[in-house]
Amino acid sequence: MPAPLRIALAGLGTVGTGVIRLIEENSQLIGRRAGRKIEIAAVTARDRSKDRGVDLSRYRWVDDMGELATAEDVDVVVELVGGSDGPAVTLARETLSNGRALVTANKAMIAHHGAELAALAEHHSAALKFEAAVAGGIPVIQGLRDGAAANRIDRVYGILNGTCNFILSTMEREGLDFADVLADAQAKGFAEADPSFDIDGVDAAHKLSILASLSFGSQIDFGGVEIRGIRKILAADIAQAKALGYRIRLIGLAEVDGENGSATIFQRVQPCLVPMMHPLAHVIGATNAVVAEGNFSGRLLFQGAGAGDKPTASAVVADLVDIARKETGPAFSMPSAELEILPRAASAHRIGKTYLRMVVADRVGVLAEITAAMRDAGLSIESLIQTETSEDGSALIAMVTHAGPEQAINDTLNTLSTSDSLLGEPMVMHILGE
Amino acid sequence: MPAPLRIALAGLGTVGTGVIRLIEENSQLIGRRAGRKIEIAAVTARDRSKDRGVDLSRYRWVDDMGELATAEDVDVVVELVGGSDGPAVTLARETLSNGRALVTANKAMIAHHGAELAALAEHHSAALKFEAAVAGGIPVIQGLRDGAAANRIDRVYGILNGTCNFILSTMEREGLDFADVLADAQAKGFAEADPSFDIDGVDAAHKLSILASLSFGSQIDFGGVEIRGIRKILAADIAQAKALGYRIRLIGLAEVDGENGSATIFQRVQPCLVPMMHPLAHVIGATNAVVAEGNFSGRLLFQGAGAGDKPTASAVVADLVDIARKETGPAFSMPSAELEILPRAASAHRIGKTYLRMVVADRVGVLAEITAAMRDAGLSIESLIQTETSEDGSALIAMVTHAGPEQAINDTLNTLSTSDSLLGEPMVMHILGE
Repeated sequence: MPAPLRIALAGLGTVGTGVIRLIEENSQLIGRRAGRKIEIAAVTARDRSKDRGVDLSRYRWVDDMGELATAEDVDVVVELVGGSDGPAVTLARETLSNGRALVTANKAMIAHHGAELAALAEHHSAALKFEAAVAGGIPVIQGLRDGAAANRIDRVYGILNGTCNFILSTMEREGLDFADVLADAQAKGFAEADPSFDIDGVDAAHKLSILASLSFGSQIDFGGVEIRGIRKILAADIAQAKALGYRIRLIGLAEVDGENGSATIFQRVQPCLVPMMHPLAHVIGATNAVVAEGNFSGRLLFQGAGAGDKPTASAVVADLVDIARKETGPAFSMPSAELEILPRAASAHRIGKTYLRMVVADRVGVLAEITAAMRDAGLSIESLIQTETSEDGSALIAMVTHAGPEQAINDTLNTLSTSDSLLGEPMVMHILGE
Repeated sequence: MPAPLRIALAGLGTVGTGVIRLIEENSQLIGRRAGRKIEIAAVTARDRSKDRGVDLSRYRWVDDMGELATAEDVDVVVELVGGSDGPAVTLARETLSNGRALVTANKAMIAHHGAELAALAEHHSAALKFEAAVAGGIPVIQGLRDGAAANRIDRVYGILNGTCNFILSTMEREGLDFADVLADAQAKGFAEADPSFDIDGVDAAHKLSILASLSFGSQIDFGGVEIRGIRKILAADIAQAKALGYRIRLIGLAEVDGENGSATIFQRVQPCLVPMMHPLAHVIGATNAVVAEGNFSGRLLFQGAGAGDKPTASAVVADLVDIARKETGPAFSMPSAELEILPRAASAHRIGKTYLRMVVADRVGVLAEITAAMRDAGLSIESLIQTETSEDGSALIAMVTHAGPEQAINDTLNTLSTSDSLLGEPMVMHILGE
């Protein structure tokens, strides 16, 4: 059997300790599949003394993380430090510059610096792998890079944040409002103390920008993702959506429009109404799911645990197995110099159905005012529900429009923005097409 | 750019012409992803004159298929002839023996000769790839081989035959019996004129035996698959299952029980009741879906088109891209000599809930007779529905048992086999566990 693949772990949080447990527990099996043993040569983290529930005494402890990039006995550095910049990206650059392989679970770093790191990896003939950065244990990076490699993919979308999906499906099941479920999820450890990266959609946007690059052969454009989170969703929105035949999910969606030369890219993370017939409507709890539409494969769905120490470790070690097998090509499926820069498409011309919810003063003429604004914008209504008046004298109007350009929604809201009939901001959620 | 990868196509049915169309249409994109062009060097089929809707004049026509295995200008032979034996396996053996790569969509051949071909491939340092043999366009072979490579997988199961799923979901939607839907599916081209390989579960069993080998690191054991198809399912079964909270799907399931040394394998294709909360309950039409349960990844689901010219071509060309990239390790994820021979587990000790349906004479004491037989076998009932008497004086009893050993079902049926209260054979379907 060839020499073992020697790895160093930088960062020993839940994922890092998960990787240690996985390599120890499945050691023999991994050796059979990888064609050689995978051995942990060195580990590092901020705090050496912390009890992590794994025995670290077998592994060389390194105080200076930077040392890993040049250590003689290390073939692969596994970066699990996190953060888009700072020590993580420094370690990544040094590792690749030294011709060592880098495996990372760091979606923020890849979303911000993926192109630079991929170029560095190619220049130094080093492998750069990041299966764990997107959708936890689901092998979707590989599914797109290899499994769907023969396809032109014009659309990739999915449920990319487990915390949001947990909150939305709990709101749905319990009939609770967002704030109550979030507090409960935090108490139980399903949501971070500062949950804003998750619930405001930034985490999903990191992942989406990576998926889009791989799918379309385009450069990562994280700055081009329109981002809206789930904070403003009411229990009433979920109830109305259900009555209309939909479930609400935070969807990251990226599309390419147009042919070579004039193609544009559209990327958006936002809560959407998903038709009950769509597989994503049945994704419950902290699960992630990614759909890619290939021009030959048709619709491919990858689903599984989107986070957690064990699933994420599974993805990290899958990358290590690929490296052990020497099955490592360009990080984004094609040489980084060939990744196209696609201009961003505006959302205004996008055609689709939209869910619109307004809390309004319950008085004569409100519905006439709203429907007149819609008529003037050329927007027609497919279904509408007005619920009973609350104690505070407000009513809730929820509707789904017929398919039309998003600009018509913008125009409608613009007209209504000066109206004193609307109490608070209207809620707009697009409906995921077939 | 390196020299093109030159392929030869043996077999020009729907998949073969699909591969030609795909390589022509996505040529440039495939070149970018594969790092070199993929070119069709030669083609062969039984009938040269047949109009296939693609222009074959650009490609060298070969009359003698065997010539492809030794042709100077061919790097990869793509075997799309079909059949477990005969010309397909002869071509496969000759191709690999000459150190050429073989890509095949032939599940029957791999199920019967996979181990021999894998050993031959290793011996001659040739690639053997068969992504298209299982679940059409879904990259599940790769998902198991690479994406889940770090995991011990103890259970793999799924919807592996699109024709059966199309028939079952149509029966469900239309409330029709099996025979009516089959005739309609045949008329529309969704089912073969001789559909027995599909509807009797053989096709699904071929695929299951391949998935099991990859998942468990065991030798393919097609002969060890218990097989039952969907012919005997009544519209009433589907209706009763629905009333009890289930959908009926043809499920191929393989499990490993026990640890190293004493592990056994269980493989079965049969119609099952799938709880409405399970993602497989929502797989509609000719779609396939595969679930693999890894000890770290947790439950992974891969879903997509299970057949058809374009999805299957997508899988064939994915294999070609891997070969072009030189990302080809052992066909079954580990050297074929390391694949274990696992003894077969008997089904009698398996524990689970079971659906039992009997058509009975509508007379006094029938239910007492049935329930007594169940009591004597130690089988208790979770829910039971007796429907109205038909015109012919028969009634239908459908029930779901509490979890118990399958032997208890066998014992019950054994006791009742001499009863003249039962009209026709009882229907037994196990319930897919969580």
